[in-house]
Amino acid sequence: MKIVALAGGVGGAKLAEGLSKYLEHGQLTVIVNTGDDLDLFGLHISPDLDTVCYTLAGLANPTTGWGQKEETWEVFRTLSKIGSPDWFRLGDHDLAIHLERTRLLAEGMTLTEVTQRLCSKLGVTNQVLPMSDQTVHTMVHTRDNRRLSFQEYFVKEQCQPVVTRFEFDGIEKANPSINGISAIQECDLVVFCPSNPWVSIDPILNLGNIREIIKQKRIVAVSPIIGGKTLKGPAAKMFEELGIQPSAAAVAEHYRDILTGFILDTIDRSSVELIRGWGIIPLVTETIMRSMEDRMQLAKETINFGLSLPLKG
Amino acid sequence: MKIVALAGGVGGAKLAEGLSKYLEHGQLTVIVNTGDDLDLFGLHISPDLDTVCYTLAGLANPTTGWGQKEETWEVFRTLSKIGSPDWFRLGDHDLAIHLERTRLLAEGMTLTEVTQRLCSKLGVTNQVLPMSDQTVHTMVHTRDNRRLSFQEYFVKEQCQPVVTRFEFDGIEKANPSINGISAIQECDLVVFCPSNPWVSIDPILNLGNIREIIKQKRIVAVSPIIGGKTLKGPAAKMFEELGIQPSAAAVAEHYRDILTGFILDTIDRSSVELIRGWGIIPLVTETIMRSMEDRMQLAKETINFGLSLPLKG
Repeated sequence: MKIVALAGGVGGAKLAEGLSKYLEHGQLTVIVNTGDDLDLFGLHISPDLDTVCYTLAGLANPTTGWGQKEETWEVFRTLSKIGSPDWFRLGDHDLAIHLERTRLLAEGMTLTEVTQRLCSKLGVTNQVLPMSDQTVHTMVHTRDNRRLSFQEYFVKEQCQPVVTRFEFDGIEKANPSINGISAIQECDLVVFCPSNPWVSIDPILNLGNIREIIKQKRIVAVSPIIGGKTLKGPAAKMFEELGIQPSAAAVAEHYRDILTGFILDTIDRSSVELIRGWGIIPLVTETIMRSMEDRMQLAKETINFGLSLPLKG
Repeated sequence: MKIVALAGGVGGAKLAEGLSKYLEHGQLTVIVNTGDDLDLFGLHISPDLDTVCYTLAGLANPTTGWGQKEETWEVFRTLSKIGSPDWFRLGDHDLAIHLERTRLLAEGMTLTEVTQRLCSKLGVTNQVLPMSDQTVHTMVHTRDNRRLSFQEYFVKEQCQPVVTRFEFDGIEKANPSINGISAIQECDLVVFCPSNPWVSIDPILNLGNIREIIKQKRIVAVSPIIGGKTLKGPAAKMFEELGIQPSAAAVAEHYRDILTGFILDTIDRSSVELIRGWGIIPLVTETIMRSMEDRMQLAKETINFGLSLPLKG
């Protein structure tokens, strides 16, 4: 059995961790959004890749949703003191990863190779892949006519601006990860983790021919919206600002042309018929992942449900 | 009164500190070797500039001769753990300076402007200037036919290889610091700090027309070689490997075409006549700087002696 998961940050990383614990070694490939990547101090920072890798390595900070646990802030303290921009907090141990990534990229390694190397050093045993080795920048257009990089929107402006649309700079020239395409072609199931549809999953789906290749597989998405809200992150706020009532059903509709199955929380069970009407098979279950048991339970249900779905096409 | 000091690392920084304490604010300009600069992890590291700035800011580590006192090693610890090259030790607070320097250079500031900004943030009140805003790389040729960057020779190989000659890559295209040239033109005395003649002072003197401009001034050098040895660094070893008996006199001879005066340690007083024979006026005094009082005392004697010298030309 081979599973491919598409993921962004926190929510995606949690389900990816559940999948990695539930599956055997080598069965899981996680393809991670890199549209949020940024350059700070000349360093290549990949926040979603780090969140997924730290989570799978057991190093993730459980309270912040980013960075490492047991982090120290010596460098950042001095940076603040000398007047460097401090809107993006860089922990010391996190910084070491950015330094090594930047060094290896400068040596000519691809982001895929760098990520494999870092994963191996951190003890991550499943395959984690950047969505592309080329640069894609998710840009957020706002109602006050600004065009912000994702991290400016997300971290610096704390998701306050009202969004009007998204652009993925560089996506026409970027190729989807070759290893990612192989993993999809060989897999039995593609899982869209409960990540932000607009800025975590869409960048991946818009890369080259990846959508067409995924379409030939069983695809199950787990809703990041529960009872009209997101546990973390701006997905619900984005739906609303784009003129769509935020709901699990809205997520299913967003992926309507591609999904085989959709997992939504028990609190949203009233949407089941609507979703079925779009030709998507729904599964209602508990989707909030508070503990490791929750993550493994949701992973198990996602796999069992996904594998039971009819193969399209 | 205006004084310009040329300096490399530790010994130079000590006398520069003495000069900065002895002189009034605004009287001292230190022009610092940047031939040792290196790029690690994509960061622009300027070891000699940092040593001088940290020393003038009272932040220097008194035992290592590089880096900051009360340093922490969180980033470096993780870098070592994930298998990054760890021959060049990067302290957390030191690293913050490299990050900010790299950021400001990427924004388009010159190294001179960046250094001014960092000095101001660190509380350095005298002017510290890189010798050039362009890149010069001091390369060390070795008897086993290798060509090492200075930091590879100095840090990675601990000065073990036998040197045959030095090259300053990029020096033909590099311009001396404009502010440095102005400071020299306006000054009453140029001091060559007790730094390595081959790899700290020579790179500065070989930049553009700086040697010709300096030549019109009173120039006093303080010997970095005391009793045939250096307190720190490979200057004496280099003289020997280049076939020259290491001595204070050898240093004076190295600068023979340019010096007005030369300060040597009491232990080397027997060289006085030899040096005088080259048309250089010697001053014998205690030159070992153990305490701040020593630094200020040597600074005071250097200035008084230097200003009493006849103006050449």
